[in-house]
Amino acid sequence: MTKKPLILVTNDDGISAPGIRTLISIMNTIGDVVVVAPDSAQSAMGHAITLNSTLYAEEIHFDNGPQKEYSCSGTAADCVKIAIREFLDRTPDLCVSGINHGSNSSINVIYSGTMSAAIEAGIEGIPAIGFSLLDYGWNANFEASKPYVKTITEQVLKHGLPKGVVLNVNIPNLSTEHIKGIRVCRQARANWVEEFDKRKTPQGKDYYWLTGKFVNLDSGDDTDEWALENGYVSVVPSQFDLTAHQFIKELKSWDLK
Amino acid sequence: MTKKPLILVTNDDGISAPGIRTLISIMNTIGDVVVVAPDSAQSAMGHAITLNSTLYAEEIHFDNGPQKEYSCSGTAADCVKIAIREFLDRTPDLCVSGINHGSNSSINVIYSGTMSAAIEAGIEGIPAIGFSLLDYGWNANFEASKPYVKTITEQVLKHGLPKGVVLNVNIPNLSTEHIKGIRVCRQARANWVEEFDKRKTPQGKDYYWLTGKFVNLDSGDDTDEWALENGYVSVVPSQFDLTAHQFIKELKSWDLK
Repeated sequence: MTKKPLILVTNDDGISAPGIRTLISIMNTIGDVVVVAPDSAQSAMGHAITLNSTLYAEEIHFDNGPQKEYSCSGTAADCVKIAIREFLDRTPDLCVSGINHGSNSSINVIYSGTMSAAIEAGIEGIPAIGFSLLDYGWNANFEASKPYVKTITEQVLKHGLPKGVVLNVNIPNLSTEHIKGIRVCRQARANWVEEFDKRKTPQGKDYYWLTGKFVNLDSGDDTDEWALENGYVSVVPSQFDLTAHQFIKELKSWDLK
Repeated sequence: MTKKPLILVTNDDGISAPGIRTLISIMNTIGDVVVVAPDSAQSAMGHAITLNSTLYAEEIHFDNGPQKEYSCSGTAADCVKIAIREFLDRTPDLCVSGINHGSNSSINVIYSGTMSAAIEAGIEGIPAIGFSLLDYGWNANFEASKPYVKTITEQVLKHGLPKGVVLNVNIPNLSTEHIKGIRVCRQARANWVEEFDKRKTPQGKDYYWLTGKFVNLDSGDDTDEWALENGYVSVVPSQFDLTAHQFIKELKSWDLK
């Protein structure tokens, strides 16, 4: 590539999260960076977009880096939309989202704001990657993630991605010497077994907190869960054509008129 | 089936929306109905779940029907979770979501609260259907939808659905005599071309409204968009394994270590 690639950076933990600050610093070594990210945490918002209320967005200066930055009152998906339509002069060569504080492996991709931003870019035809570290803490250590984020980003810029495919990258919470490398995987079959913690307000009204335990139902050694449990960075190609093509033939045999 | 099926009904337009009231009346002719639905509209919330705030949910009586009903302060996906964990004595035989006021065809499945509820049920192993009528109005006429909703529901109860597959049903906004029947389809490739309507607050601060135009990029005659434009009810089997299996082999050939 003769000129530097234009890279859009976003996340769902908010523009001040250490994960996105790390991602910005890595992307500054690769291309020209524009950041459009939520002004506050938007986790577990799935692919929510802001239709029925107003959006605020403004340029901000966060550090002394060369990137341009905008903070936005909306969700991660909103950030990608407004970046493309309002703030970027041309279509970016790449969109990266994260580094999320916490896993987006397996079924978590469905609930993930980080991945919804990558998917939103993918819908627009932009190669996109969501990065997540398996540590929910604000003080998560992103040091060991850096070379993997850089390698995967450079490979996507080199090869491109097919239309309709984005990458979901999860990084185990291990020190550099304990990460074994990168594995290309499929999404593991898993779910959350929730419990609702039922309480009463001081006024006596019932309310609930959602709590839950992640349960991997998949014993395959080609899944993201297997890779992460065994010390690998998992890379799952994810698509937003949700059609279960393999079931169409049988469904056509039903009595549907 | 010797005993009546247990049917969970939800939506994202809110428990008082005419679409869900129609769906409840149809389901009352088929099985034992429990409704758990948002207390207000939750559209375009994607697969959002409520993790960082409290949830309220309480039994309510809305009309004289035989169904049990609960209204919940959360999203459509929250409603399915709390229904299963707190309000239902046993796993339901079916979950139906809708009838949504407005289309959830094509890429809209990604942004849809209606479909996120169906997918949430599918993750729990419950056969599930999302129904949507192509009319955004609160006063949409659901009369012509009724026989199709009933037929598709009865077929799902008869045949079951494979693990990991839910149905996305969209109904054209036509009178009974103009609907030509049901077509099994794939999700059309499409996107939204957004424009942000930029305004200033009375205090001079920039803000934005998201507006957009749906663009079908797919000329296939086997898509949901084609079916709906040609007067058919579209049925797309949708899955929540987002893995782009067809791309795994090529991705493994990259220099990822």
